[in-house]
Formats: sequence, structure tokens, C-alpha cells
Amino acid sequence: MSNIAAIIGGGVIGGGWAARFALMGWQVRIFDPDPEAERKIGEVLDNARRSLPGLSDTALPAEGAITFHAELADAVAGASWIQESVPERLELKQKVYASLLAAAPSDAIIGSSTSGFKPSELQEGTSNPGQIVVAHPFNPVYLLPLAELVTTAANSAETIARAQQILRAIGMYPLHVKKEIDAHIADRFLEAVWREALWLVKDGIASTEEIDDAIRYGFGLRWAQMGLFETYRVAGGEAGMKHFMAQFGPALKWPWTKLMDVPEFTDELVDLIAGQSDAQSGQYSIRELERIRDNNLVGMMRALKHQDYGAGALLNETDKGLRDQNGTVQDFPDIDDLTKPIETVSRAVPLDWTDYNGHMNEAKYLQAFGDATDRFMWIVGCDAEYIATGGSYFTAETHIRHLDEIQAGERIRVETICLNGQGKKMHLFHQLWAGDRLCASGEHILIHVSLETRRPSEPTGVIPQRMAAIHDAHAALERPEGVGRYVGAPR
Amino acid sequence: MSNIAAIIGGGVIGGGWAARFALMGWQVRIFDPDPEAERKIGEVLDNARRSLPGLSDTALPAEGAITFHAELADAVAGASWIQESVPERLELKQKVYASLLAAAPSDAIIGSSTSGFKPSELQEGTSNPGQIVVAHPFNPVYLLPLAELVTTAANSAETIARAQQILRAIGMYPLHVKKEIDAHIADRFLEAVWREALWLVKDGIASTEEIDDAIRYGFGLRWAQMGLFETYRVAGGEAGMKHFMAQFGPALKWPWTKLMDVPEFTDELVDLIAGQSDAQSGQYSIRELERIRDNNLVGMMRALKHQDYGAGALLNETDKGLRDQNGTVQDFPDIDDLTKPIETVSRAVPLDWTDYNGHMNEAKYLQAFGDATDRFMWIVGCDAEYIATGGSYFTAETHIRHLDEIQAGERIRVETICLNGQGKKMHLFHQLWAGDRLCASGEHILIHVSLETRRPSEPTGVIPQRMAAIHDAHAALERPEGVGRYVGAPR
Repeated sequence: MSNIAAIIGGGVIGGGWAARFALMGWQVRIFDPDPEAERKIGEVLDNARRSLPGLSDTALPAEGAITFHAELADAVAGASWIQESVPERLELKQKVYASLLAAAPSDAIIGSSTSGFKPSELQEGTSNPGQIVVAHPFNPVYLLPLAELVTTAANSAETIARAQQILRAIGMYPLHVKKEIDAHIADRFLEAVWREALWLVKDGIASTEEIDDAIRYGFGLRWAQMGLFETYRVAGGEAGMKHFMAQFGPALKWPWTKLMDVPEFTDELVDLIAGQSDAQSGQYSIRELERIRDNNLVGMMRALKHQDYGAGALLNETDKGLRDQNGTVQDFPDIDDLTKPIETVSRAVPLDWTDYNGHMNEAKYLQAFGDATDRFMWIVGCDAEYIATGGSYFTAETHIRHLDEIQAGERIRVETICLNGQGKKMHLFHQLWAGDRLCASGEHILIHVSLETRRPSEPTGVIPQRMAAIHDAHAALERPEGVGRYVGAPR
Repeated sequence: MSNIAAIIGGGVIGGGWAARFALMGWQVRIFDPDPEAERKIGEVLDNARRSLPGLSDTALPAEGAITFHAELADAVAGASWIQESVPERLELKQKVYASLLAAAPSDAIIGSSTSGFKPSELQEGTSNPGQIVVAHPFNPVYLLPLAELVTTAANSAETIARAQQILRAIGMYPLHVKKEIDAHIADRFLEAVWREALWLVKDGIASTEEIDDAIRYGFGLRWAQMGLFETYRVAGGEAGMKHFMAQFGPALKWPWTKLMDVPEFTDELVDLIAGQSDAQSGQYSIRELERIRDNNLVGMMRALKHQDYGAGALLNETDKGLRDQNGTVQDFPDIDDLTKPIETVSRAVPLDWTDYNGHMNEAKYLQAFGDATDRFMWIVGCDAEYIATGGSYFTAETHIRHLDEIQAGERIRVETICLNGQGKKMHLFHQLWAGDRLCASGEHILIHVSLETRRPSEPTGVIPQRMAAIHDAHAALERPEGVGRYVGAPR
């Protein structure tokens, strides 16, 4: 099974798939007859490269090669995943599928980004319907994890399992929709809200800006972490879900929604909306809005990672898979590895670690060193399981030299030397590198404590012997520059 | 105009209003005949006290007194805002409004939390309809900023302006709905999605969990920062909003939505939903889910504060108002104030600064000291305006002593001494206090640089004389313990 993905049709969606596959280490082959395809996809790639890598707390694989092909057959040669994102015209899609099935490997999975067609409509009349699924993403495809995976009886269990595994491998969440329906699941909600919003604008109840504010200052925030049902469950409180729903029941009978009755999409209505949208958002170019959106999404998703909830929990799972696969940040290193500093951090600088000027914020240096210390603690056996038994290390003192600036998106690594690992002490010296530039050092003394008394205590479990092994091996390392400095010491 | 708020009817919504008013420094008087009112409101207050204060980057006012009253007239005496959150029965609300208008100050604004009634329905037949507005909040009321302020021709411009000013003063965003409509704005969208979701569950297309995942892994994340129209504007890309809408037009004609046709709310359907909800979320108690929700919301909203966008921009505005009002963190202090350390930070520890164990995370100590340094820089004249002219201070070296633990929600302050303010140098010593406990110290050397060359340069503008004034005054202060330490120095 190759890690080659073919992207049929570019634009915002196809480009988003290309970016995600490539940044997750896949080779990407693109076919799109649009003469502007390379430029448009390039812009999506720029946005993805600045935002996706830092979403992960571990280094992504090396970016896969991206090539453009004049012939569809060349694009799909050897591909294990083919993503179709051509315009939403059934005839066109069916023509493309005929060509794809003729040229592609017979075990390649063909996913469609379609929001308007069901998989059975795409599969109908083809030579191998079982290869075709709907894999419907959400813009920006390189950031939002949801992919609605819609299948039919023509798709084997093996194909479905493989599709889910590939989507997870590139950091997505495959939501398996087993009973196909127009617009799948999420877009049905968007369509419902869109219709209601059109009425409100048309009837002068609210402007586009007021509607957007009603969403993003209220329930929109809730829905970024809990969906409709879980939010209502919490709101139902002590009385429970049934009681809560009983309160809702009567409202469903009220005739005050005009949802089925669709407003006529006249030029007048279109102009009204476009004008209000310009008034609301016109001070930013689309490129600026895309970057604002991505900054916001990365910040919120990383906040959810810290809570290990919602999309954040998915991202933590993806990170775990990357670590297991890469082995870039070590389990307990073997004796050969102890002859050099231990790599404790390897990652890209995320968007929310930087200031408006694009440089890594001062406070994030201690974040990076804190992550390095956490990894070192894990390596020596002070992991969540150990901590649950009542012991941990508390930091007593920290010294940081800020030596060079770091930009958003740069890959950084931390290499750690243990200066003293005897008894209750853990004296570490971290060096933060961006490529071959030493950007900062962090020196820390931690003390092993009892979480019950909050007082110093002897470490137990595997910690003493691991700390001793590292202490002894690192005693032979050259003492790094900067150890033992006080603020203002001469350089 | 008093800062007294009367809360008529408790529960999750009334309790949320009580919490928000009290935490923003208002005196709160509660009337609720439910014998469990004090317990239920107490639980909402607990949730609010742990989450709201840290949302702000400046200290909230002292919490206002909260009292419970057996008589409605006692609750509303002297109140300038009265919030009604009694059950959604028109007859009951009208009875309550008659009593309120008889007892309340004639200039008190009476806001209703109603989602089901229009203001004209509440105003009808009352002795002073102009006092009554709808102020519809979103759960959790102490966190989500949106309040739909729905008014009629009976409400004067002065009343509306005052209502908006009070809602903003307690950190809310009053969305003025000028043409009343059933369910106002936001709940109309929720109702639309709810109906569609009921159909999907009933028809076995998706479970409650799958529907929630379709929301929170996809468009739900987008809607926490941009609403429907702005998201579509960005997606429309270069071609613009009109082009994007033209693509949507045809879909509106498709007959695939059953939205107007409401599923019958049978016991069977209720059981199906309750059962799926239990399977999805049952491993957490409601109290646990409330705290998870609040942790998530605080984390995401603070991420948006860093981007100064969406709800985050609102919060930054609220913070600014609090600073202007409190004067807790100083403008350039006068000569008398320079005889003691300068207060540079005063705030509550936010939920996302703490680990699962409830203690402030090591990395956040540098965040707090970084904020203190930023405030000191602002005080001496190195503000955004100055930085835009091409000069700033870069941190060269940092030393932190971690002395004591800090809990989520604790109020902290940083007091700053300038050890050296001559020439290009800024040598600061920060002390981080929680009450009378010294929890950490941070010593920093910063160098003034040219942002163009990234090399040291002489500061300009007001900075030299302000730095000199502080340098001279602080030279007389007792040298604090811990200055000049290196990691591992004896204590």
C-alpha cells in the first residue's frame, strides 16, 4: 500500500486535501485542467504550512513531494487514495469516475468531496462501484478534522476499514454515515440555518453581521466543544435529558418557523447580502480573513488539546500515532544514546505561540522547556501512572537565556542534559534549537516531592536507576556554555 | 443609579445572571419561592467563581453581596436592573410583571430571559410597558457574552441605551433586535437544527453522538469565531460573496429537507434520544460535564483574546473598561508611588493556566512575568504606538524562583522593581503574590533594540526620562531577596 494520494480537481477543497496529505508525509499527485490550478493550490498550501504543523505537539513527517500532471492517468498511477473534488455536476463527475476507474489501481479508494450527491449516484453505472465512497471534508480541509465517510452496500467492510484508517492517518475523523442521505449530516444543519438566515435578512430582522454575532458570541462557542445533544444534556441539569426534552416538545408545535418556505433568490436579495457582508467584513482581504480564521482555529483547537476534549482529544490521538510511528522523541534511550543529549521536544512552533509580529513569544520559551522537562520526567519513569501513586517533581528554580528569535512554523527541538540526577534532585539543562541555530537555553532544578505532604521525598519505582544511568552517562558530556549563570553575568 | 440587580427566578439561567452581576461587583438580591433556590443558585455560583474571574486579564471588582428575599418587593427595592427568569408560561410572567411594576423603582429596567415570548406580549396590559425588555442570555450565562436585547416602540431610546450600557458593564454583548420575532434570532437557528437532528435520529441516519461529532469536529469550530456569513465570504475566495451565493442558489430549490414537517415527539423517540445521550455522555456526571464545558469555553475564549477576534475581542474590550474603571494597574505612577514597587499585574488565575490537578502550570509563571514586563514597558512609554515606530525591548535573560503553589481562581498580583533602567538596559525584578504568600520571583534583563536591525539601540520618546525616574526612585528600595541567583545557589 503506497502512501501516494491523487488529487483530482484543485481549488480550496482539492488544495486543502493536497496540503493535508503532503504535510502528513504522503506523496501527492494533482490533476486539474484549470491553468490557474498551481497558483490556487499554492495559496492553500501556504496557509496550510503556516498553520497545520504547529497544531501537533510532535514533529510531522517530512512533507511529501507534490507534483502536477497533465494526464489524469499519470496522476493516479500507484495511488492508494484518490480524492475527487471537481465541480458539483453529476454528468461531469460520472465522466471523471469512468476515467478514474479505467486508470487507477483496482484497490485504490476513490473518495468524493461532494456535498450534493449520494455515493450511490456516483457509483451507478461504473465498472467497480465498491471503490467509490463519499469523503466529505470541511473548509479549511487542512485544519478541520471532520470527514463524513458515506458508503453503500457496494463498499466492502475491508474497503471501509481501509478508508477509515487512511483518513485517521492524515489526522482526520472519519464519521461513518451508513445510510446515505442528501447532503449527508452536517450540511443539512448548515442548510437549515442558511434558510432561516436568508429569511431574517430578507425581512430586515437582522443583518449578516448581527446573525454572525448571534452565532459566535453565543451557541457557536458551545458547539466548538460539545454538540447539540451533549449541550442540552448539561443544560437539563439534575432533572435529566428526558425532562429537558419534555420542555422542548411543545415548542415544536409552534408555527413560527418558515423553514420549508424558501425565499426567492433574487438579484435584490443577493445584493442585499453582499452589501451587508462587505460592510461587516470588507476591511480585510480574503487572504487576511483566511489567516485570521486559521489563527483562531489553531488557538481554539490547541486550547481543546489542553483539555483533552472534543477536537482537541482527536488531535492528541493523532499526535500519539505520530510519535508511535516516528519514534522521534524517545522512550528510555538505550546506553548508546546516553552518550549525547536526549531529544525531549521535536515540533513546529504553533501559531498561538507567536505575537502579531510572527515571533515566538517570550512566555512560550518556558512552555517549550516545560514540555521538555515533562518528556524527560516521562522518560525516567515519572509518568501519569507514577504521579497517580503520589510522587512527582516540582520545579524550584529556572534560568533562561534568550539567544535568538524563532518564527511561527519553524521546526524546533530541545536537547536535554542531566547535570545532576542524584537523590531527590533533577538538575536539567535544555538547549532549544531551530535548525542549527541555538535559540535559547533553560536550566532547571526540580525536587522530587510527595504530593500528599507537598514536601521533598525520595523517588521510587524505576526512577532511581534510570536517573542514575543518565546522571553517570551525562557526567561524561562536555559541560554546555551557560550553566550556572545569574541574570546580568558577563558573557 | 445603583449597582443593585434583582434576580426574579433562579435556576440555571437566573443563577447565571446572579453570578455574572455579583462577580462584576453588583449587589444582587434574589427572589425565588423554590425552597431549593439557594442550593441550586449556589451551584451555579461555584461554577462561575472558578471560571469567570480568570477570563479577564485584570482583576474583577470585589464580588457583590448576594442576598435571598422572601418578598419580591424587598428584592427589587432600589434596583436599577431586574432580571426575570421564571418558567415560560405567559400568565405567570404577566402576573410577575404586574407585581414588579408595582414594587420596583420606576426607572428600573426589567429584562426577561424568555426565549418563547416577544417583548410586546410581556408589555401588554402593564402599567409601564417601557420598563420591560427582553434580555435573552445563553447558558452558561456567566461565560457566554451574548444577550439578545429585544425592544418595541414602547421602549424609549434612553432606556435602550441604558440597557445596553448595563449589559456591557457586566461583560455582555447586547445584540439589539429591533423587530421582535418569535424566539428572537439565535434560538431560531437552534430550533432549525434541532428539528433536523430529531429527524436524523428518528430515521436512524445518525445517533446523538454522531450528530454532535458532525458539529464539533467541523463547522462548529468555525462558528466559534466567525458566523455563517463571514465563513462563507472567506470560502467564496477570490470570486467573492455573490459568486459563492450563486452556487448556493440552486440547492435551495432541492426538495430534500423535511424541516417544516415536525417529527412526533413520542415516548419512543424521547427514549431513543435519552438512551443514545446516556451512551454518549453517561460516563460523566452533569456537574463534571458543566466543569468540562466551562474549562473548554474559557480555554477557547482566551485563545480568541490572544487573536483579539470574535468573543475574544469583546473580552479585551471588557478588560479595558475594567482597567479604566479600577485604575488597579497603573498609568505612569506619580512620584509618591515610586517609593514602592509598581503593581504590574492584578488578576485571577484562569482555568487554562492550571493542570488537571488544579495548580498553576510552571510555564504560566513566565506568562505572568511576561505580562508584568509588558505592563512595565507600557508604563514607561514602550507601548504599541512606540513599537510601531521601530523600537522595542527584547528579553535577554530570565531567572525564576518557584516558591509556592497557586490554585486556579486565586487572585495574584505582580509587584515590580526596576534594578537598572539606564541606557539600553531594563533590569527588572518581579514578585508574584497570592494574597500575602510570595509564590515566585522573576528577574529579567531586557535590551532596547531596533526592530529593523534587531540590534541594541538607544530608547527614545518618553522612555529615557521615565526609566530614569523609576531607576532613581527604586535605587532607594530595599534590595529584594533572590536577586542575582544562579540555579542551585544555596538558600
